[in-house]
Amino acid sequence: MKYLEDFTPRQVFEFKAPGLSKEQIMEFASEWDPQRLHLDEDYARDVHGGLIASGFQTMLLVFRPIMRELMADVENIGGLGFDSLRWLRPLYPEQPLDIRIELTTVKRSRSKPDRGVLAYRLEARNPDGEVIFTTDTGAMIKCRPEEIT
Amino acid sequence: MKYLEDFTPRQVFEFKAPGLSKEQIMEFASEWDPQRLHLDEDYARDVHGGLIASGFQTMLLVFRPIMRELMADVENIGGLGFDSLRWLRPLYPEQPLDIRIELTTVKRSRSKPDRGVLAYRLEARNPDGEVIFTTDTGAMIKCRPEEIT
Repeated sequence: MKYLEDFTPRQVFEFKAPGLSKEQIMEFASEWDPQRLHLDEDYARDVHGGLIASGFQTMLLVFRPIMRELMADVENIGGLGFDSLRWLRPLYPEQPLDIRIELTTVKRSRSKPDRGVLAYRLEARNPDGEVIFTTDTGAMIKCRPEEIT
Repeated sequence: MKYLEDFTPRQVFEFKAPGLSKEQIMEFASEWDPQRLHLDEDYARDVHGGLIASGFQTMLLVFRPIMRELMADVENIGGLGFDSLRWLRPLYPEQPLDIRIELTTVKRSRSKPDRGVLAYRLEARNPDGEVIFTTDTGAMIKCRPEEIT
């Protein structure tokens, strides 16, 4: 398992997410976000040129590899939240994503020295290299036990 | 369908979300967010007194009734994003949520008068009345066609 001491500011991690099929977009939307942008092809074509994924689904797709490949191995206490989360462009069917996170803060808590903030800036790009989704986020994670003074 | 003109600032809407079972928390986490806080009862008990839901699952649970009961009937162009999204307290199994949104902005675009911003502040409370999740969010939605000048 990884602790705060295993990370350094400006460290970069890269991930990939597969494209969503039209059926996956509609199935997710039916359950969680039944807006016509995600379910009604005629409506979505008028607004965005075609069916687009729910922003919630885009978010899950982008964070899935981050959580599975990185955060699942971290001694996590809890997520901090999202700042400036933006869906900058629509996500269309069959667009895989390139995801990049850069650590912005790696800092031990003053009041609780057994833990600290691991924060990062995230960008997800479509196959044309355009950023479609971005946010600042992070987690409170544990310090390595033997490092606590 | 509803348009920008159907909303006014400070309007309040209330929703309810059901509690999650321990099995639902673990099933979601296995797929999307396999951190030990959501899968390993011993680890989670040490940190939070028990298993807690993934923040992504909390978010979906909170927004599901908002999207289904309100936004599905709105002429939506796209979500704006999240600002100051915070998981203030853990969500434990079997805690239903009371959700309240208050409209903060209802404003037609100057550059594109066929649309405008519908923004709101969201709070979700656990059965003890404690706010566990909050954010500022909103969408770009269409103006009623006959209102465009």
